[in-house]
Amino acid sequence: MNSSPNEKENHENAGADSRTPVTVIGLGMMGTALAEAFLKAGHRTTVWNRSADKADALVAKGAIRAATAAEAVSASPLIVVCVLDYEAAHEILGSVGGLLTGRTLVNLTNGKPEQARKAAKWAAEQGADYLDGGIMAIPQMIAGPGALLLYSGSPGAFETYRGELDVLGASQYLGEDAGLAALYDLALLSAMYGMFGGFYHAVALVGTEKVEASAFTALVIPWLQAMMASLPLQAQAMDANVHATDVSSLYINKIGFVNLIKASQEQGISTELVAPLQALVDRAVAEGYGADGLSRLAGLLKKPQ
Amino acid sequence: MNSSPNEKENHENAGADSRTPVTVIGLGMMGTALAEAFLKAGHRTTVWNRSADKADALVAKGAIRAATAAEAVSASPLIVVCVLDYEAAHEILGSVGGLLTGRTLVNLTNGKPEQARKAAKWAAEQGADYLDGGIMAIPQMIAGPGALLLYSGSPGAFETYRGELDVLGASQYLGEDAGLAALYDLALLSAMYGMFGGFYHAVALVGTEKVEASAFTALVIPWLQAMMASLPLQAQAMDANVHATDVSSLYINKIGFVNLIKASQEQGISTELVAPLQALVDRAVAEGYGADGLSRLAGLLKKPQ
Ligand SMILES: NC(=O)c1ccc[n+]([C@@H]2O[C@H](COP(=O)([O-])OP(=O)(O)OC[C@H]3O[C@@H](n4cnc5c(N)ncnc54)[C@H](OP(=O)(O)O)[C@@H]3O)[C@@H](O)[C@H]2O)c1
Ligand SMILES: NC(=O)c1ccc[n+]([C@@H]2O[C@H](COP(=O)([O-])OP(=O)(O)OC[C@H]3O[C@@H](n4cnc5c(N)ncnc54)[C@H](OP(=O)(O)O)[C@@H]3O)[C@@H](O)[C@H]2O)c1
Repeated sequence: MNSSPNEKENHENAGADSRTPVTVIGLGMMGTALAEAFLKAGHRTTVWNRSADKADALVAKGAIRAATAAEAVSASPLIVVCVLDYEAAHEILGSVGGLLTGRTLVNLTNGKPEQARKAAKWAAEQGADYLDGGIMAIPQMIAGPGALLLYSGSPGAFETYRGELDVLGASQYLGEDAGLAALYDLALLSAMYGMFGGFYHAVALVGTEKVEASAFTALVIPWLQAMMASLPLQAQAMDANVHATDVSSLYINKIGFVNLIKASQEQGISTELVAPLQALVDRAVAEGYGADGLSRLAGLLKKPQ
Repeated sequence: MNSSPNEKENHENAGADSRTPVTVIGLGMMGTALAEAFLKAGHRTTVWNRSADKADALVAKGAIRAATAAEAVSASPLIVVCVLDYEAAHEILGSVGGLLTGRTLVNLTNGKPEQARKAAKWAAEQGADYLDGGIMAIPQMIAGPGALLLYSGSPGAFETYRGELDVLGASQYLGEDAGLAALYDLALLSAMYGMFGGFYHAVALVGTEKVEASAFTALVIPWLQAMMASLPLQAQAMDANVHATDVSSLYINKIGFVNLIKASQEQGISTELVAPLQALVDRAVAEGYGADGLSRLAGLLKKPQ
């Protein structure tokens, strides 16, 4: 059964119990988690994936298998897409754009702000409402208390489908510029990658003395928690552009970095993940900022390399 | 008044109320915090710094000013040193080594494992007990609940002075190899630098759209907290060397990294802090690990660059 594009309204008229039918396109690790969340929340959930077998487990749990992307799009007023990249999303939707008229497309595929803006324009040309989203969670967190999803694009779409989107996790709307969710998403990812990269170096370093990663993690987590407490203070310093410090100077960090790099080399591990911040600290000191705190560094990234 | 090296015992005999005299050498941001902590805890605290004026505020609060490093060493059975680097520590203590006989030297200066081992050897030659330490805290945290100090070296010194060391923060003894505290210290610092570096990139990226660092920090902190929860699981995977994932593959991260790097370039900010982890992810995928999780990466740092 294909739904009419305005099914949300029909369903609302039909009573509080009936949920908006939802289509999920892309059933990788994340798409599967999204479809499961909608299923569990009682939505009629239609699914489609390029490799059809990835729908099997979901169908066994009650999802409806669409034979084609066209069928998937036609099945629900709300279409959620989560695939490898925007090129893949376009491969899937490019030929069925006409079917999107009057529906809402929520694209949770990771991408760049510029890609999101283009997708929003394309969707508008199809007569579809468009929301771009960034999933700040791993699949296991979806529908759980820690999941955050960022959205930008059509304010009307967000208002209309906020309840449905909240099924996946907390929803935060960033603004009408469809590129904003991607920008924040990538920024948050870079923060995560930084933390992970530092952790990998740390584990490799203590690993040279046969310290197990798990044992070390018990030490590193409270340490990172404690150091995380400095981020709001550093952010204040950045916003005020006042970098005087009573914590530690860039100069003392420069000296500490020499120890970190040399010790890593002496222990026989690659310094590739830590060397770039050392170079930035050295540059800051060379530019005369040695007495400033670490908060000085973010501003030095503003210039192109 | 100069103390005899075995004053700790005398003081213990004199009753529970009398505290071990302590000397703090080096009154930079950290050394000042250490001396203040001992003072507040009721220790007779003798202080010395190359630039004498940095002792003024401490002396006003009751610290005893030593005129020379020799006087500082002679004043207490427990000598805590916290200066720029091991070279500075050696400049200060090199000529007064003989006065260390029978005393305990605790070196909280940041350094490499090899430097700590050399210092331990040198101290033993002077007839002094030696502990090397890593301060896992900023000055403002000293003597507070979040401060952790790592120690390695003489087990006897740690046992004898554990109570005094606990004044500064929680004390964790890592073993008789004097180099261990420095190794863990540098590893924990690398984890912190990674997290900070990722944060700086993130702030610079959203800053291109006039997002204030402080506003963004409110988003980044819960996100990093959530992602930190994955570290124990990643550590388990590392220890077992089993990197199959149901979270996200290196391949999907490779695609996300392309977006992160390109978007950063398009927004006009340097990618210097995030590019190295991208290169490592790309290398891992090229080596056939594309289906593995991120936990695979730490092991790839074991090879020298
Ligand atoms: N996993 C996470 O922790 C996480 C977290 C936040 C955001 N995300 C984002 O969510 C998106 C999906 O990630 P994932 O972890 O689910 O990845 P995944 O498990 O690798 O799944 C990739 C999905 O994309 C599909 N796909 C790839 N190329 C395609 C093409 N040319 N045409 C049609 N479909 C194509 C795949 O279909 P086949 O099955 O046919 O290959 C599969 O459904 C990514 O943008 C990712 O950055 C993931
Ligand atoms: N600040 C932190 O957050 C922090 C955290 C953990 C560990 N640490 C470690 O603690 C140590 C001190 O750091 P800090 O922040 O206190 O640095 P700081 O404020 O820059 O102070 C440096 C100290 O070293 C002394 N010094 C430098 N060169 C010397 C020399 N050649 N001879 C004698 N004294 C010399 C300075 O004396 P003058 O006053 O005469 O220059 C000053 O007392 C470093 O190893 C640092 O890595 C610091």
